[in-house]
Amino acid sequence: MTLAKGRFKRLRLAELSERSGVAIATIKYYLREGLLPPGRRVSATTADYDEGHLRRLRLVRAMIQVGQVPVARVRQVLAHVDDESLGRTMRLGAALWALPLEPERADGKSDGGDDRDGEDEATTAARAEVDQLLRTLGWSTARELGELSPVHRSLVAAVATLTRLGYPWDATLMAPYARLMHQVAARDLDFVETFPTEAEKVETAVAATILFQPVLKALHRLAQEEESARRYGLE
Amino acid sequence: MTLAKGRFKRLRLAELSERSGVAIATIKYYLREGLLPPGRRVSATTADYDEGHLRRLRLVRAMIQVGQVPVARVRQVLAHVDDESLGRTMRLGAALWALPLEPERADGKSDGGDDRDGEDEATTAARAEVDQLLRTLGWSTARELGELSPVHRSLVAAVATLTRLGYPWDATLMAPYARLMHQVAARDLDFVETFPTEAEKVETAVAATILFQPVLKALHRLAQEEESARRYGLE
Repeated sequence: MTLAKGRFKRLRLAELSERSGVAIATIKYYLREGLLPPGRRVSATTADYDEGHLRRLRLVRAMIQVGQVPVARVRQVLAHVDDESLGRTMRLGAALWALPLEPERADGKSDGGDDRDGEDEATTAARAEVDQLLRTLGWSTARELGELSPVHRSLVAAVATLTRLGYPWDATLMAPYARLMHQVAARDLDFVETFPTEAEKVETAVAATILFQPVLKALHRLAQEEESARRYGLE
Repeated sequence: MTLAKGRFKRLRLAELSERSGVAIATIKYYLREGLLPPGRRVSATTADYDEGHLRRLRLVRAMIQVGQVPVARVRQVLAHVDDESLGRTMRLGAALWALPLEPERADGKSDGGDDRDGEDEATTAARAEVDQLLRTLGWSTARELGELSPVHRSLVAAVATLTRLGYPWDATLMAPYARLMHQVAARDLDFVETFPTEAEKVETAVAATILFQPVLKALHRLAQEEESARRYGLE
């Protein structure tokens, strides 16, 4: 039995629970579901774990608890995270593509369009608008991949909802927003690149996508309050 | 009976449904629930509506269908939208404060912290970190209002979740993100200001907060894909 070996400190189940804040019963459930690889057996009743397990456990916890990602989907995301045959863009892309953009809705409905079936006018128009925006931005990969990307489909759906409800959409209005989000995305990747191994980079990208999203959204709303007070005063 | 009077074209219920894409039965439900003010009676069985009704109907639809805001909450938001006694910051603020940041979860749980009760260490630490960030940014109103603002509370909760799961949080890392979101917020207000009346400004702010959020999120993820392909190639 090795308690500490090189940079990998060996952890017992109780320590794993302690350091992750995840209950032992939950960890056992993740092990049974194959979301966490088995520990190294050290006796008939004991196994030990390492820092890789701890990282994976945090990631699984983030997806399930914060992202409300269903277990089957978590398994899919992890399969891509672990796929060493892919280059970084594809590995990152595949893992993030498998990650839903929205928590699945309790009523099973998607946003908008629940009054109609199939592709409607608003969706067709939205697709053209999004393509126009991507051309304006010079985002050639996003244009090339098009609706292969679930994120692209989700953008088209969001734009279609807007126009269906009678709100304006305008590539000229949106381009500066998209450029700001590009700056945000560049920072995301800078952050991801600070992690040493390829596995940690991909794991961090998935975790950050889930965990920083609520932070970003709250910062946005807080900035609106701040800016509003600066412009119109607090009265 | 006036069919068109000044800039307000009069609309029959069927036209209101046609132009909003909302079913007549749904409009009647909103009228009964007081989410839409009654039309002007023109006979025992007929009422007519104006552009203000159409705008209000779209807003209600956006909140309920896209934002998944419960009816009682919608009523609360609208009360603030209609409160002409407030200055713009407060009217905007009150309406947006009443608007939940996240759709209410089916399981009734909030994000994170479901293993513990009451205020934990992570929350206390997160509050200090957020305060440090706001000081770095010079967002004095946000600091002053503090946890009076549900958005501030939500930011503290998101940061606490991050740290509880063992992910790093760092005011230095986050400040550039916050500054980018401030640029986004300034654009939001520029957009809102293009609307002529105070009522339309506030209505637009609420609708935009709900409807542009999915657009912004999708643009963020799409920008990550684009940037990733630029840095690491498509392989």
